[in-house]
Amino acid sequence: MGLLFRPLFEKESSTYTYLLADEKTKEAIIIDAVSETKQRDVGLIEELGLDLKYIIETHVHADHITSSCPLKERFSNAKIVLGEKTPIECADILLKDNEELHFGEYTIKGIKTPGHTDGCMSYIVDKFVFTGDALLIRSSGRCDFQQGSAATLYDSIQRLFELPDETLVYPGHDYGGRTVSSIFEEKQYNTMIGGDVDKDEFIRRVDAMELPLPKKIHVAVPSNQVCGSKIITS
Amino acid sequence: MGLLFRPLFEKESSTYTYLLADEKTKEAIIIDAVSETKQRDVGLIEELGLDLKYIIETHVHADHITSSCPLKERFSNAKIVLGEKTPIECADILLKDNEELHFGEYTIKGIKTPGHTDGCMSYIVDKFVFTGDALLIRSSGRCDFQQGSAATLYDSIQRLFELPDETLVYPGHDYGGRTVSSIFEEKQYNTMIGGDVDKDEFIRRVDAMELPLPKKIHVAVPSNQVCGSKIITS
Repeated sequence: MGLLFRPLFEKESSTYTYLLADEKTKEAIIIDAVSETKQRDVGLIEELGLDLKYIIETHVHADHITSSCPLKERFSNAKIVLGEKTPIECADILLKDNEELHFGEYTIKGIKTPGHTDGCMSYIVDKFVFTGDALLIRSSGRCDFQQGSAATLYDSIQRLFELPDETLVYPGHDYGGRTVSSIFEEKQYNTMIGGDVDKDEFIRRVDAMELPLPKKIHVAVPSNQVCGSKIITS
Repeated sequence: MGLLFRPLFEKESSTYTYLLADEKTKEAIIIDAVSETKQRDVGLIEELGLDLKYIIETHVHADHITSSCPLKERFSNAKIVLGEKTPIECADILLKDNEELHFGEYTIKGIKTPGHTDGCMSYIVDKFVFTGDALLIRSSGRCDFQQGSAATLYDSIQRLFELPDETLVYPGHDYGGRTVSSIFEEKQYNTMIGGDVDKDEFIRRVDAMELPLPKKIHVAVPSNQVCGSKIITS
């Protein structure tokens, strides 16, 4: 008996969803659940007999629609959790920096990591950190919409880099099929911010990203601001 | 210091590649590496300073081309490993049932699990089992080419089901974004062979699969029979 941990992947937006549970008490949390894979996730939670306690988002996503509200309807004990700076009314809990929640004998601790968006939170459970779109494997989140700020993101990632080297990094996305890294690896090898990259150089690199807007942004952001309870086109 | 473990994903064929290493000695193994993601895998092995010792295949794949031979050219200490029943001349080691190999202080043990193909091997490292296309998450391999046999596969999976319940199952593929299961879960919930499914019923279910042939089969099988050293069209 210990910590059940199931990383899950949604191919269309290359999003990772993470299901964690205390195997003894069955209390569970899910991080960044996606509308397209709701049935898979519901099926898994039900098969495993889990008691879903928290439906957690790292931020208001721009590239996919959350299944937070539909999951809450299905699992009525569950509460929707986002970071305190998120401009959102559908959350049950707006977690403060360093605030902790509990599932069984495990703890999830939020640490604010703004920069990709104002309200971004990373979450620490055991030796894992779930970094959302702040720190990606060998990369970082973009900062060109939703109040993004490369300077702020630099400071947030420096804070993540203070975690123990062996902490395993589970990001919100990976577009190259990587599933996990470590704080040590990212401090050394992250191509945006690793090694001796300073704040000015990081800002220059983020500014140079020149990415197209996410295809779904005009539906995803307003729909996610109501926790996926309905589809809204801005 | 412990076991470094990096599951990796190749989107086109939904194949999982697994990189494992002893963090202290840096000796490493890779399981089911794919041609399309060779550069990613080489980059990761080099960045982490790993000494690639074994390039391991669960079987001769029909849906993607292996990067075994190209990896061996790059990492000259590495040996290519397949199961003893594999009709293949490019392997350095044809592992026998229950035979073990070592990387640092860790052991990888092959157990033959034929049925999807004659030569299929699963591999046990620590509390993980890498099941290739024998046991998939909530499913099993197909048996309609490469000397496949549903009756044989049934017996192979029963053998996997004798592993401790908590053993984590890492399959060769998943088409629904699931990354890991457990022997307990598959014994209970596998839709092909879990619960009280007997051999006759399993054979009936496998026969009812009616899948199209893998798109690449006529290139992948002959090319993989030379460990991906060249592209051969049958």
